[in-house]
Order: sequence, then C-alpha cells, then structure tokens
Amino acid sequence: MKISIIGAGMMGSALAFPGRENGNEVCLIGTPLDTDIIKACRSTGRHPKFERNFPSGVKYFQFEEWEEAVSGSDFIICGVSSFGVDWFLNEVLSHSASDLPVLSVTKGLIDLDDGTLISYPEYWANSLAQKSIKRDICAIGGPCTSYELVFHDHTEVAFCGNSMQTLKMMKQALATDYYHVSLTEDVLGLESAVALKNGYALGIALTIGLCERENGEDCGLHYNSQAGAFYQSAREMKKLLRLQNATEDCECMGLGDLYVTVYGGRTRLIGILLGRGLSYDEAVRELNGVTLESLVVAKRVARAIKRRADKGDVDINDFPMLMHIDGLLCGEVDAQLPWDKFTF
Amino acid sequence: MKISIIGAGMMGSALAFPGRENGNEVCLIGTPLDTDIIKACRSTGRHPKFERNFPSGVKYFQFEEWEEAVSGSDFIICGVSSFGVDWFLNEVLSHSASDLPVLSVTKGLIDLDDGTLISYPEYWANSLAQKSIKRDICAIGGPCTSYELVFHDHTEVAFCGNSMQTLKMMKQALATDYYHVSLTEDVLGLESAVALKNGYALGIALTIGLCERENGEDCGLHYNSQAGAFYQSAREMKKLLRLQNATEDCECMGLGDLYVTVYGGRTRLIGILLGRGLSYDEAVRELNGVTLESLVVAKRVARAIKRRADKGDVDINDFPMLMHIDGLLCGEVDAQLPWDKFTF
Repeated sequence: MKISIIGAGMMGSALAFPGRENGNEVCLIGTPLDTDIIKACRSTGRHPKFERNFPSGVKYFQFEEWEEAVSGSDFIICGVSSFGVDWFLNEVLSHSASDLPVLSVTKGLIDLDDGTLISYPEYWANSLAQKSIKRDICAIGGPCTSYELVFHDHTEVAFCGNSMQTLKMMKQALATDYYHVSLTEDVLGLESAVALKNGYALGIALTIGLCERENGEDCGLHYNSQAGAFYQSAREMKKLLRLQNATEDCECMGLGDLYVTVYGGRTRLIGILLGRGLSYDEAVRELNGVTLESLVVAKRVARAIKRRADKGDVDINDFPMLMHIDGLLCGEVDAQLPWDKFTF
Repeated sequence: MKISIIGAGMMGSALAFPGRENGNEVCLIGTPLDTDIIKACRSTGRHPKFERNFPSGVKYFQFEEWEEAVSGSDFIICGVSSFGVDWFLNEVLSHSASDLPVLSVTKGLIDLDDGTLISYPEYWANSLAQKSIKRDICAIGGPCTSYELVFHDHTEVAFCGNSMQTLKMMKQALATDYYHVSLTEDVLGLESAVALKNGYALGIALTIGLCERENGEDCGLHYNSQAGAFYQSAREMKKLLRLQNATEDCECMGLGDLYVTVYGGRTRLIGILLGRGLSYDEAVRELNGVTLESLVVAKRVARAIKRRADKGDVDINDFPMLMHIDGLLCGEVDAQLPWDKFTF
C-alpha cells in the first residue's frame, strides 16, 4: 500500500516506522512549519527528535509538493498538532478526494457553546458537510509515546472510525508484532478518553512537585499521592466518559494513556513545576513559552463541564480534580489538591 | 478513643501514626511472630522497618498480654498478613467480645469450590456464624504504602463494613489532614478491587523486565508497554469486579492501588525478575524464598475464574492477562505477554 503522512511532528513521523517496515510505500510530507525537519530527514535519514534512522525507502516532501506526493495513496495520516486542525481542514481535507481515507493522530476535543464536547473527526466531518462534502475521518488513540514506538516497544492502541472496513485496511497497513491495534466505531469515546486524560495527568504530576515542595527536591519519588490522584482521576474520567457515551474498552485505553502520560514529557514537567509552587506563567516560561496542547484541552473540558453544570446536566461536585486544575491554570489557586473532596 | 492494633506488620503499625496523632490511646500488640519487633519498638520507639519513630505515647505489647492490652478498646485493627487469617480467627476473633469492632488491613480473597471469590471479612463472619457468633468485620483498602503513610504523604483509602455508624467512628479515630478516608458498605467490592490488582501489578512489572531483556538492563524505564499492560489490566479488573458486584468507586480505588503497587516493593521486583527471564523458582530464591501474598491471591483468582469458565459463568477469553500470569507462576510459559490477545 501507499501511505502519506502529512505533518512531520513526532507522532505522525513515528508511524512511518511500522508503515514502512510492513513493506508499504511511505511518504512523509511536512507542513509549512516543518521545512527544516524535512530538510534534516532528507539529508540524514533521521527525524531530529528520534534516535534511530527511518527505515530505508521512506520518502520526504516539503508541503508544496504534497498533492503529487499524496497521489495514489491508500490513505493519509494526519500528523498535525491540535493547533493545525483548521489548517488541515482548509488545506488538505478540502483539496483531496473525499473518498481518500484519513487517519488522524491529532489529540483534543472542541467544546461547543452548549457545553457539548466533540472530537476533531466530528468537527472536520461537520465542517466539510457544510460544504456538501461527505467525508469520515478515522483517528488513533491509546498509550503510545512516539519515541518508544520507534524503539519497537510493545504498544497497544486503537483506531476508531465509522467504517470497520476502512479501519481494517489501516490496521493491515500499520500493525506489526510490536504495534498492536484494536478497532472501534466509538469515535467520540476513544477521542474523549485520550483527550480527557491530559488534565488529569497534570493533576497526578502536581503531587510529585508538591512532594518536593514539602520534602525537598531530593526526596525521591513517592507514590501514595500519585496513586490517590490517579484514583480520583479514574473516577472523574469515568463520569466524563459516560457523558460521551464511551465504551468500556475506550475508557480503559484512556486509563492506559493516562498512565503513560504521567511519565511523559512536558505535561509531567509542567505539573511538577506547578506543584513545586511556580505560577502558571513562570512554569510556561520554564518550558520556553510553548503552549501545551494538553492544557488547552484541559481548559476546554473544564469550560464545557461548567456550562453543563449551569444547565443542570452534571453535578459540578463530581469533578473536584478537574475544577482544581482549571483554577490552577487560571492562576486562581495553589497547587495543593483538595484531597478531602475526593472521598466518598 | 482507645485503639488496639494486633499484628506488628508494616501496615498495621503504620496506622499507629494517624491514630496516635489524633490523640487516641494506641496499643501495638505483636503476634507470636513479632516478639523481636515489639522488643525493638519498646527499646527504640521505632519499628525496625520505618525511618521515623512512632509518635510518643504508643504502647507496645507482646501477644501474651493481648487480652489486658485490648481491654477497653473502642476497636481493634487487625494487622496480620493473609497467612495469619485463621490464626486471627481462632486466637482473637473467637476470644474477644463480638461487639468490639474490628478494622482489618489483611489483603486477599478466598476462592470457594464453586469458583466464588469471597473477602476475609466474609470468611471470618461465616466461620464465626458457624459457632453462632454474629460479628461483622470492617476492612481498609486503597493505595497506601505503609512507609509513605508514616511520611505523612497525602493518601486516599476507603474503609468498608456493614455499619456506616461503626465506619464513621473508625474514620473519626484515624483520618488526618494527610490520611483521607472514604466510607462504603461495599465490602466485597473494595476487598476484591484491592486483592485483584496484585496479579495485574505483576503483569505490568513483567514488561519492565522484558524491556531489560530486550534492550539491556541499563535501558532505563520505558512506559508504552507498562501502559499497554495497564490498559489490559483495567479491562480485566473491570470485568472481574462486575462479577463481584463492585461499585465504581471501589473499582477506582483498585486502579489507584494497582498504580501504587506497580511502584511498590516485592511484587514489582519479582515481576522484573520474571520479565528478565528468571524462572519462578529462581525469582523466589532471589527474594530469599519469601512467598508473596500477592502471588497467592493471583493464583486463587485465576483458579476461581477457570472454575467459573468451566461452569459457563464467564468467558475465559476475557482474561488473557490473568491466564498468562497464572501460567507464568506455574512455570508453564515465558514472561512475554500475549499482546495481540489484548486487542478488540
């Protein structure tokens, strides 16, 4: 098969590995923000963020060549970040055949005015429908750090979409003996599970920083508080996913993803900094001003839940951790968690 | 209030801290196996396994003095390991007032001939009922490492029992600003959640050893596989807890407990050793031949599920991780997880 990956971020680029290892033709196409990355891939055969070369035969393209590069593809992988969602809609989805399947790695949710949370596949499909284009977008979710996938660590993820036939084709192309793929038609459930975990991963990471604040930065890792925060995160995610009509399998994918994200990169780091006592602005400055996608989605979810609570759909008291994260990101509260609110 | 802790293991002993800090009279009473520990506590004011002294005023007793020591107590804390369950039944429960409340830290489940899994509180109550003694036993469950509790880390646990009034009394005695206590009448649910996590914590730890086997012992920690195993553990625990009619809050306590146990002591260590490729016997030898309670309960649960599958109550294919752990502990299979069986 032929697979075209649009967006040379780490997750999309990592999928070039199983794709190419399976013998497929793989094209990695940068967005206009990826010109340096694509140059580096062309000259070194390696993505600047990875510690292994791409499998031989992967082809690299700058965005201006995208339409020729995509031509003849069996499907596209959308590798943009959530900040590129509208760009991808306008530049790629609106200018490619509507029957060309798309598999997206973009994580996040959009909160509508009435507090409903929708997935990016739904957002794209709705936007295209307004132009009388019918197009379904598939997505990937589950615990998968890109660099560990490149390392061939055993990884469990799920592909979601409306057409099981399309999903099976994508699984055929990408699954390997280390990349294990489940399939589900529960798009909103899977996308919600993987988006919701972000705020909660921050909450768990807060306890690490709080422990350092309490006991000194050389106190080592303690786990009671992380686990207590994990317990509460699981409780809140369960309720939120019920609102999203998620299947249990998707909920479990979200829990696995929560686990891997606590140990991941910047969400963990910012949680630790906030836990130590830095303000939100100070913490972001430490991360060189990079706005974290994970925090954007946490804020959107909090906003949606508050709106739903105003309407009487949910009880805000069911979400003390989410509300705490929201208050923290707005600079309103200290990092220390409201532990007594987690008891039943 | 007056609290008597019977059994000077780490978890029971740790509860002396919040108990005494709340101004209660606290007696720590060893079992016949604890004579050296009680001597050490008396002479040093510190439990040999902890890095902090007990709060001043805690009293220590050898078992021969237990009846005088217990006299006047508002409740007893049972701090024996699961190997002491019958000893506690015969020596303490059968020789103390049946209206003297008991709060047990003993973790585990018992599998009956028909594959039903019951809690120790239920086992004790049933055994006493056969002697026409009516006595309800309460228990504690949730993510709580004893040494971190002693360190005053924020900790979330639940007390379970048949009488909310009794539970409230125990919470009043023990809850502090760092020890946060939920209450539930779902005894089987809570006890099942905290017992079931043991085999699964081993499964997750296996992936750490397997990664070392694959990449060398200095490969550092990778998280995709741990998270993939966590995802599958959550799926299986959810189904097992449904069999036990557990509430969702208890399920979440179990997930938090699973999280803390992966990072705990010997279950993690034995999982890593098995993952590296040691046989079960070799791994146990490395741990100085100590039989792990956690493995005993994992085997009992596997045995119960196989029996229920034979009867047609459950589908054995829903529990590939549990069956794998069972096979591994019986020396039948290599540690490598059946990753493809975890997909849906």
